[in-house]
This record gives sequence, structure tokens and C-alpha cells, in this order.
Amino acid sequence: MTVDSRSEKTRPDRAAATRDRILDAAERLFAERGVLAVSNRQIGEAAGQGNNSVVGYHFGGRSELVLAILRRHAVAVEQLRTDLLTRVHPGSALHDWVGCLVRPLPAHLAELGDQSWHARFLAQASNEPTLRAVIRADAKASPSLRRAQEGMFRLLPAVPAEVRAERGEMSRLVVVHMCAEYERALQNGVAPPSRTWETAAARLVDAVVGLWLAPVTPAVLGPDAALRCRR
Amino acid sequence: MTVDSRSEKTRPDRAAATRDRILDAAERLFAERGVLAVSNRQIGEAAGQGNNSVVGYHFGGRSELVLAILRRHAVAVEQLRTDLLTRVHPGSALHDWVGCLVRPLPAHLAELGDQSWHARFLAQASNEPTLRAVIRADAKASPSLRRAQEGMFRLLPAVPAEVRAERGEMSRLVVVHMCAEYERALQNGVAPPSRTWETAAARLVDAVVGLWLAPVTPAVLGPDAALRCRR
Repeated sequence: MTVDSRSEKTRPDRAAATRDRILDAAERLFAERGVLAVSNRQIGEAAGQGNNSVVGYHFGGRSELVLAILRRHAVAVEQLRTDLLTRVHPGSALHDWVGCLVRPLPAHLAELGDQSWHARFLAQASNEPTLRAVIRADAKASPSLRRAQEGMFRLLPAVPAEVRAERGEMSRLVVVHMCAEYERALQNGVAPPSRTWETAAARLVDAVVGLWLAPVTPAVLGPDAALRCRR
Repeated sequence: MTVDSRSEKTRPDRAAATRDRILDAAERLFAERGVLAVSNRQIGEAAGQGNNSVVGYHFGGRSELVLAILRRHAVAVEQLRTDLLTRVHPGSALHDWVGCLVRPLPAHLAELGDQSWHARFLAQASNEPTLRAVIRADAKASPSLRRAQEGMFRLLPAVPAEVRAERGEMSRLVVVHMCAEYERALQNGVAPPSRTWETAAARLVDAVVGLWLAPVTPAVLGPDAALRCRR
């Protein structure tokens, strides 16, 4: 018996195609319903797979599946940010450095077109603490994100580390959820005709710049804190 | 046969107690897993109800149940905002007017203590477009919220209506999700000891003021918009 080299050669391709179909279905279902509201069986069915265990076989647990979806977009987003970083220098305006942080996601979504579910997937996954931790760890591994953050921090007045971490989280929330909202409006045909991903990105950059430039009110502590909370 | 007037009198109380238990269970489960990931049967079981249809019987559909949870908090939140509004006047600083918008939620959560699920419930419900519409419509009906917004807008430079609506949504996102995060950290005992609801509120007010004061970059439109998106 001879081995059929043709079918040997296509096996990895078939496996890759199956993985792609699973990731497409999972991203869409997670975006629509939330990451915990969808079963592996539902993902397998939506991906046209008869075998109930196919999702677990290819991806293991929920965190691995979420990470695999992130990774499919990571190369494009990283490239967009690297391109933006070639156009900034230490003397660039704060807007431009913040643009390197904010613009890659909307620019990537603009390239995906009106069949994208990615922003809504990110918004849903971010609502689960364990999955948010997966997303954060993945972002921290991005060299371009670190360079953009360092460039931005050099132009900002010093703020306590805790406030810096909070504002980083606020910026991420605003970008992800506003992109999710616009992605949904585009797909449903209810986005105002004047809107483009470019205007959405420009408005996000404005708001995030404002958020980072806001002076920090000295923390109110001490015994009358509860009272002042109502002041 | 005589009617037992005692049991007649307690029947509405029993119904109210059942409704309360259902709302407690629903808020917690929605907060933990997402509003669409939880079935009426699971809510009924968590509320100690043997009858499978008890949630539907008391509340109808998912929107009505979400609205009933909101309403349980609405009186307290409205009162907190009305109190804050007695302390501001047209000459008050922007920070104080923004405080009237931002502080009622964290102040209410501070009163609820470390067994609160309300902020996480709001964050989860906001991720569903239909439920976000329910929450928005309910907020719009609040007279105190409208007064606080009008006071804030008087102190802000004019911005296009679309930008105003977007920044309102960004502010809401930041407040709800950061409160949800802090609520979770408190309950899990991982909040930094220096943190209080008061410091959380003060930092939210700072950030939201910054977001509203950010100058609006004129929208980039025209044929080269896609190009500029990468600039």
C-alpha cells in the first residue's frame, strides 16, 4: 500500500480550515450573547461541525479559545501600531502618541468591514474577570503598545501609579465599548451617514487625551470621608 | 366558612418577600454570569422557589426583570443626587456639577456595603443593546439627572450634539465599569487598603471632567479619510 501524498498534504490545511470556522463562529456567538452564555456544542454546530467535542479538541478551555481569537487579530493590530509609531518622535504632540494607542483597533475594524464582530467580542470578553486578565496579559506582551505608552507617559504630568493604572483601564473601556457600539450600528445600518471609523477614532483620541490630562484631585481620606462622599 | 383575615393580610407581604428574593437572586446571577447566560429556572432555584414559572409569573420578560432590579435602587440613587443638587448653584465649579452626575452611584454602592452586586449587574446589563436601551430610558426619566446634566452643559464649551451624546455614553461606561471593578475587588478582599468609595468617586469625577473638557478635533472627512486613519 502506498500513502496518498495528496491527502497527507491537505490534512493540515483541513485542520486549519476547521479551526478558522470554529474561531469565526465563536467570535460571533461570544459577541452576540456573551462568552459564558455560549456552549462548546453551540459553537461546534454554528461552525458546521457534527462532532460535539471538536471545540475542546482544537482549543482546550474557554481562555485558550478567547486567546486564539485575539491572536488572529494581533498581527494586523500590531502592524497598524508599528506603522503609526514610525510617524511619531519624542517631540510629537500628545494627540499623536495617544493616537498610537487608540487608533489601531478602529483602523483594524475599518479594514474588516461591516461583517466584523471583533469589537463586540472584546467588549463581552472584557466583562469576565478571568478573560479580561487573559486580554490584558496578551496586550502587555505587545512591544508596540509598550512603546506607545512610554511615549505618552513622557508627555504627561506625573500621577500616582494607582491613578495611572485606573486611567489606563478607563481608556481601554472607552475605546473597546465605543468601537463595539459603532460596529453594531454599522452592521445594523443605523450609524449616522456622517460617521466613519476615522471620525470615531478622532473623537476617541480627543476624549482619551482629556482623560489623561485631567488634574488629579488629592485623595480625600480620613474620618470624614463618608460624609464628604455626599458633599 | 369564615375567611382567615390574618392570612389574607399576609398574602401581599409573602408575595413581596418572594419578589424580593427573586430580585436578589437575579441581580447576583446576572452580575456573575451575564444577563443572557442565566435562565428563569436558575433564578427561581437560587431564590429558593420550587415553582419553575415563578420568575415569569412575577416579572414577565427579561426587560421587565432588569427594570424591576433598577427600580429597587432608583429611589436611593435619586435621593443622593437630589441631596448633591441642593449644594450646587449656577456659579459652582464644573467638578461639582459633574459630581452630581458621577457620585450618586458610588455613594449608593458605599451604602450597600461589600455584599453589593449592583455595579456588576449594571455593567453586564449594559452589554446587551436591548437592556442598555431600558437602562437609558429609565435614566432619562430621572428629573435630578436632567438637572445635573443641564448644569454641567452650561459650563462646557459648545460641542456638536453627536459628540455630546458620545461623551455622555463614554462617561457612563467609565463610571459603571470602574464601579463594577471596585465592587468586585472589595468583595474579593483584593482592593488596595488606601481605596475607598470616596477616592474611587473623586478619581472618576476628575477623569469625567477631563473627558468633557477635551477640545474637539474637527472631523476628518473627505476622500483621503481612510489614508489619514493610518496617519
